[in-house]
Amino acid sequence: MSREICVYMDELEPHHLDKIAAVAAAGGMTARFFRTGEEDAARACARGAEVLYSMSRKPLAWAEDLKWYCSASAGVDDLSARPEMVPAGCVVTNSNVYGLTIAEHTVMVALMLLRRMPAYEARVREKRWQGGLPIRSIHGLEAVMVGTGQIGRCIADRFHALGAAKVTGVNRSGRSVEAFDEIVPVDRIDQVLPGAEMVILAVPGTDRTVRLLSRERIALLRRDALVINVGRGTAIDQTALTEALNDGRIAGAALDVAVPEPLPADDPLWTAKNLILTPHVSGNFTLAYTRDRNVESFCGDLENYIAGRPLAHRVDLARGY
Amino acid sequence: MSREICVYMDELEPHHLDKIAAVAAAGGMTARFFRTGEEDAARACARGAEVLYSMSRKPLAWAEDLKWYCSASAGVDDLSARPEMVPAGCVVTNSNVYGLTIAEHTVMVALMLLRRMPAYEARVREKRWQGGLPIRSIHGLEAVMVGTGQIGRCIADRFHALGAAKVTGVNRSGRSVEAFDEIVPVDRIDQVLPGAEMVILAVPGTDRTVRLLSRERIALLRRDALVINVGRGTAIDQTALTEALNDGRIAGAALDVAVPEPLPADDPLWTAKNLILTPHVSGNFTLAYTRDRNVESFCGDLENYIAGRPLAHRVDLARGY
Repeated sequence: MSREICVYMDELEPHHLDKIAAVAAAGGMTARFFRTGEEDAARACARGAEVLYSMSRKPLAWAEDLKWYCSASAGVDDLSARPEMVPAGCVVTNSNVYGLTIAEHTVMVALMLLRRMPAYEARVREKRWQGGLPIRSIHGLEAVMVGTGQIGRCIADRFHALGAAKVTGVNRSGRSVEAFDEIVPVDRIDQVLPGAEMVILAVPGTDRTVRLLSRERIALLRRDALVINVGRGTAIDQTALTEALNDGRIAGAALDVAVPEPLPADDPLWTAKNLILTPHVSGNFTLAYTRDRNVESFCGDLENYIAGRPLAHRVDLARGY
Repeated sequence: MSREICVYMDELEPHHLDKIAAVAAAGGMTARFFRTGEEDAARACARGAEVLYSMSRKPLAWAEDLKWYCSASAGVDDLSARPEMVPAGCVVTNSNVYGLTIAEHTVMVALMLLRRMPAYEARVREKRWQGGLPIRSIHGLEAVMVGTGQIGRCIADRFHALGAAKVTGVNRSGRSVEAFDEIVPVDRIDQVLPGAEMVILAVPGTDRTVRLLSRERIALLRRDALVINVGRGTAIDQTALTEALNDGRIAGAALDVAVPEPLPADDPLWTAKNLILTPHVSGNFTLAYTRDRNVESFCGDLENYIAGRPLAHRVDLARGY
């Protein structure tokens, strides 16, 4: 039996399949491709496959001899929470390719908040042609970026390109990262929150990031502060943030993630004041660029795998990313 | 009687007044400042003033010996249409300082259109947590920028910074402008419209720009084309654009300007499909950066005026900009 790669993904286009098939064949492996609705065939393939590449976790349950699982998502918090989902001895990699699309989302909602777009949209829905609200700019802005991984760096690069005055990165170790003007370790985050015009969160969902922006830290923020979360909903005390928005203790927020997802229809977050809420759409596979980079990332590691080299995008499930 | 400068503007802050007063005093002139509600005093000052600096055109009617009128706006189409508003022999300058704020507005609405934000906002208003729409990116985008003045250049710079593949500028003469990958003269615009993913208009309101994006040219656009107008509403055949949007013949539009303004409550534009409408807010005086640059621009020309040098921001009312 040949060494098989099971690819279970709806979003791939023919040129992606060709590329994966070619890299596999060059290494003496066979790639097989399945979509939603082809579960029986996918299950049969996954059972004996060495490698699995998917966004869905479902095929993990089918695998019996898996050596490597490549997650098409960046976040693997679900696997960290339930490591028994991954077969024993199986290496896990993720796909750090969402920076561009998440950074474009972040620039969009940052400008929408700074330029009072929710207020103008409300006026236009009432057919009122009335301008004049004071607005702000990314030019000259001082922002705090919590999370300095691929996503945080892509965001910082764009904020700098648009003239931001300072982007302070917050990460676990305090190690220097080129995209940022300054790095502060997360245990000193309380020192930078009171000065921030904008706080952006792009951290993985781990034990250490749960309620990182706690009620106490929300209370440190300026009245004109804006909060953006494009990482995991768990990173913010959502109840405290909703209250701060409704009480006008901060100026606004844009959340692409929430707890839980999907958000129940009766959750107070839906109607919080000065909130731009989006249904977890900043990343995903909806941008062609992201799909292309995702396949490139997998193929790069597939070449590593075939050559017996370490995989570039390996994650540590105990650490959570 | 001293040589007087009449400044009639609500939006200036004390440091702006100090700066103007200092430049005036250094040249042996006196600056006097008035706001809405101080019409009697402003009228008395304007009557004998040599120089007037205002956003409003009202004080022009009061002036009798005016040598120089500095318009705090960029557009002077109203003065071109009625040149008798300007006293005979009076030089007119404008304030080309709106590029940054208009470019940020343009980046915002471009991303909102590309990322299907109106559709997501509608879902969120219905409390539906549902992602998955195909989206596009400024990264790799090919855009056509109609108008290569200060505003068009600021937009092109930001699109390049965000990874746009190509920004083609369209101007009257076809003369090269550094911010653009290519320049096409406006009489050849029909050659570039069929290939454009996005068409952005930032042209002054002149006889030559009326219905520049005509019904025939709208018909040249791709089905996935997006149109943005941050210049003057007259530049687009608004009826034809509304029909194209409602019929799905183009993918979307973002208009910050309309005909007429304010838009009447029964205008079909309010409810056009896939349209982001804003009430002429992309420029204006609402951003501190814009106010600062406006005063700097005036003070620079005030130094020129005092020294007898040509004014840097002189406009030709017959040409319209």
